[in-house]
Amino acid sequence: MPKNPNLTKVNHLVSKQDRTSNKDHRGGIFWLTGLSASGKSTLAMRAEAALQEKGLHAYVLDGDNVRCGLCRDLSFSDEDREENIRRVSEVAALMADAGLIVISAFISPFKLGRENARAVSSAPFHEVYIKADIETCERRDPKGLYKKARAGEIKNFTGIDSPYEVPETPDLVLDTENQDIEQSVQALIEYIESEVLV
Amino acid sequence: MPKNPNLTKVNHLVSKQDRTSNKDHRGGIFWLTGLSASGKSTLAMRAEAALQEKGLHAYVLDGDNVRCGLCRDLSFSDEDREENIRRVSEVAALMADAGLIVISAFISPFKLGRENARAVSSAPFHEVYIKADIETCERRDPKGLYKKARAGEIKNFTGIDSPYEVPETPDLVLDTENQDIEQSVQALIEYIESEVLV
Repeated sequence: MPKNPNLTKVNHLVSKQDRTSNKDHRGGIFWLTGLSASGKSTLAMRAEAALQEKGLHAYVLDGDNVRCGLCRDLSFSDEDREENIRRVSEVAALMADAGLIVISAFISPFKLGRENARAVSSAPFHEVYIKADIETCERRDPKGLYKKARAGEIKNFTGIDSPYEVPETPDLVLDTENQDIEQSVQALIEYIESEVLV
Repeated sequence: MPKNPNLTKVNHLVSKQDRTSNKDHRGGIFWLTGLSASGKSTLAMRAEAALQEKGLHAYVLDGDNVRCGLCRDLSFSDEDREENIRRVSEVAALMADAGLIVISAFISPFKLGRENARAVSSAPFHEVYIKADIETCERRDPKGLYKKARAGEIKNFTGIDSPYEVPETPDLVLDTENQDIEQSVQALIEYIESEVLV
C-alpha cells in the first residue's frame, strides 16, 4: 500500500489469468543465488536461450548488467548491496507480473534480501541455490576477482571479507561443484518448465 | 559501459530477432508524458488491455504504482523526480529488451529525463504527448491533487509550482482536451500496432 496519501494505485485491466492464457505459461521468478563464479550467469543465460527455443518467454536479470544501468549509482557497501537487491527484486516482480519467466543472477548473499524479493512478488518465486564452495569458486576465478579480493584490492567481497548466507530451504539446488554445466542447465530448465507450463 | 573495472557485462544468448520471431511483434517503449489528470494511466491501461485481447504482449509501468515499490524511497523534489525517471527508464529499457511493448505513464516533466529514457533503451522509443492544458486538468482533478497543490498542501506539483516542459517533437500527440477518451485510446492502439507488428 502506498504510504503517501497522494499516490493512487492504478489497477491493470489485464488479469494474471489473461496473461497466462496469452502465453501458454505462467510468469514467475527463478532467483539464482550463490558465490561469485558459482555459475549463476552462465546457467541463467543458457536456460533463457533454451526456453526461448521452446517458445517460452524468459528473461535474465544479471547482477553485473543491472549495476551498469539501474543500479549504477550504488557501491558494494552492505547498505548499497541491500538497496541493489531491493531494486532488482521490484524489477523482477514487475516483469513476472507482466507474465515473464524471470531468471535472476545475483550473488544476493543475505537471507533477508532474498526473503524480501519473494515477499514483493505477486507471482510465484523460486529460490535456486547455485552450490559451489569458496575453494571451487576461487579456483575458477574467471574474472580474477578473488585474486584481487585476497590482495585487498576489492573490499566487501562475498566469501572473503563479506558473508554469504547459504539458503536454508531452497526450492532447488544446482550443485555446480559436482555436476557439469550441462547437467545443471538441464536440471534448471526442467524445473522451470515443471513450474510454469499450464 | 561499466565504469567499475570489476563488472563484466554478460551477453544474452537470445537476439532481438529471436525474441521478435517468438512473439510476432517487436518490443518497444511508448512513453506517455503529460500533466497529472491528462489521462496517461487511463489510456495506458486501456491500450494494454486492448493489445492483450489481440494477443500482443504489453505491460504498463505506471507512476504511482512504481512509487509504491521500486521508487518508494524517493520524494518529489527535483532531484528525486529525476532519479525516479532515471530508474523507470532503465526498467522500461530492460522490459523492452525482453521483447515487451512497454507503455509507461509518468508525468516526466523534464525534457532531459525523457531524452535520457530514449538514450538508455536499445529498443525503439516513442514519445507520446498526452495533451491537456492545466485548466482542463485542474477542472478534472479526479484525485483532488490540484486542489491540495493550490492550497500549498503538496509542494513541487507539476503545472503549479514545478514546470512541465512540453515535448518539442513528440512521436505522437493525443489531445485529450479535445478528443474523447475512446478516440485517444484508439489512436494510441493504432500507433502502437503500426510500430511493433512485423
